[in-house]
Amino acid sequence: MELSQIYASIQDDLDKVKDRLRSISRVDFPWLSEQLGYVVKETGKGIRPALTLLSGKFYNYDLTYLLPMAVSVELMHTATLVHDDAIDKSVVRRGQPTINRIWGDEIAVLMGDYLFAKAGEFVADTQTPRVVKLFSQTLGTISSGEIGQFLGAFKLEQNREDYFHRIYGKTAALFALATESGAILSKAPEESVAALREYGGNLGIAFQIVDDVLDFTSTEAIMGKPVGSDLTQGTLTLPAMLLVERYPEDNPVKRLFETGDKKHVEAAIEMVRDSSIIEDCYEIASEYCAKACRNLDVLPQNANRQALVDLTEYVIKQGV
Amino acid sequence: MELSQIYASIQDDLDKVKDRLRSISRVDFPWLSEQLGYVVKETGKGIRPALTLLSGKFYNYDLTYLLPMAVSVELMHTATLVHDDAIDKSVVRRGQPTINRIWGDEIAVLMGDYLFAKAGEFVADTQTPRVVKLFSQTLGTISSGEIGQFLGAFKLEQNREDYFHRIYGKTAALFALATESGAILSKAPEESVAALREYGGNLGIAFQIVDDVLDFTSTEAIMGKPVGSDLTQGTLTLPAMLLVERYPEDNPVKRLFETGDKKHVEAAIEMVRDSSIIEDCYEIASEYCAKACRNLDVLPQNANRQALVDLTEYVIKQGV
Repeated sequence: MELSQIYASIQDDLDKVKDRLRSISRVDFPWLSEQLGYVVKETGKGIRPALTLLSGKFYNYDLTYLLPMAVSVELMHTATLVHDDAIDKSVVRRGQPTINRIWGDEIAVLMGDYLFAKAGEFVADTQTPRVVKLFSQTLGTISSGEIGQFLGAFKLEQNREDYFHRIYGKTAALFALATESGAILSKAPEESVAALREYGGNLGIAFQIVDDVLDFTSTEAIMGKPVGSDLTQGTLTLPAMLLVERYPEDNPVKRLFETGDKKHVEAAIEMVRDSSIIEDCYEIASEYCAKACRNLDVLPQNANRQALVDLTEYVIKQGV
Repeated sequence: MELSQIYASIQDDLDKVKDRLRSISRVDFPWLSEQLGYVVKETGKGIRPALTLLSGKFYNYDLTYLLPMAVSVELMHTATLVHDDAIDKSVVRRGQPTINRIWGDEIAVLMGDYLFAKAGEFVADTQTPRVVKLFSQTLGTISSGEIGQFLGAFKLEQNREDYFHRIYGKTAALFALATESGAILSKAPEESVAALREYGGNLGIAFQIVDDVLDFTSTEAIMGKPVGSDLTQGTLTLPAMLLVERYPEDNPVKRLFETGDKKHVEAAIEMVRDSSIIEDCYEIASEYCAKACRNLDVLPQNANRQALVDLTEYVIKQGV
């Protein structure tokens, strides 16, 4: 199923989210305006704001609160990307030069801070302290998770638990914020709030596993950034981890992490592609999607719930 | 008057603020705990949280809300310092190696983000969306101000208006947040809220002028960082600006900005010290303090109001 079909019931409102995002670049300072315009250009799939809107559809769907929340989660996402790119010295994202590549690391840091501030303004517009607290806690989870990833770079001694913990912080925490906040702001009963938070978390983990697989199987043209970026930065993702598990004595990941020689990246990609590791990763991602779908059981059975189910299938299909 | 006398009525609560600050370093991850412990060590004068508490003393002084707010402003301050040091490549602050010096720029960026997140959690605990909004707007003002400072570095074409605008963003905006939030959270009437915001802004400008003067007149031992740091980073502060105004044709600041040769920093410091510029700067700072005191006119005349008046004197005396 296409994303446009899944988004059908919220497409108009998602367009409003994008309008609001664009509006933040209308500031008095020409240089800031230019940079912001570059940052908030619509290039992503808007899955996070869509999750907030869809999660808000089960009960009291009130855009007064859901719209600023959806804008806020997307802005927080953008801000973390801007900082991550500066930290990872990435030069290209979504096929375009990164902020740090064009304006330097310093501007990227400050621009990220500015985007966090804007995200904070929008979340304040929800008039809901509980959601503000969740928003801040999520940012804490994301940044401490990034610190963990940075300090764990080029270290082989990581198990699957470490990996899932890491991608929860990196991706799933924000998915969970998107869905939980949508539930809270639509005055969902607590059982549904918990269910939608769990759904978001599980979907986020599946999403990140697929993203990590794509770093091995995709092409630079499709991904908009070089293949093997994770390994190059010393990040041990699930496919690399499975490779290490299978050939614990000697494998290109181990050699890369030990020597830092980038030639092993290509060898690792090839070995992963030629093995059943990709399949195994998709199976694990599918299990998380299945969990996510089961989380929805307590919610009213309607077209909106079906959209969330379809979204789990879309996330898996993305990579296949 | 000593700071301890000015703080007398809030000293116990200020100690609670410091306890809360220390408590954020008690996290599960040993490495993060170590870094956080380093960041929140009490070394500052706590003027920002003190402003929140003192501003909350006029009406309904309720620590349930004022305490998290005071913690929040100090955390936001700390977070911006951590990012600023990384951006400026500063190696020492308050006589200690900076985070970026010890753990690198990447950790400094993420640590700053984590501190923003914690600040956001505390501001959420005020349960007051209006204050959350102010908090976020202030962060936006600070970071866009920093972008302006960064882009304006080593540029002579700046007038006093630019300078005051810049230091409002850099320092006074957070002072204004500290006082205004204290007023709001103590349920002060709107006239008093506005008065305390103005007071905070004016005091903050005076504070930053004095800080900028100290960069010319103080010693590394007292400041805990090298003298002349601002000029070295290409930041045109009030003393340097007055020097350029007096000798528009030729002066060491102009030569420094044109050539980048650091030897002109010392010459500029000497010329400023040997002139009446320092005196002139103090006079301007004193005018802002006088304005700040006049802002207090609408508030109940009590010991607390006197403490805020005394604080303006303390800020000026700091440098003399």
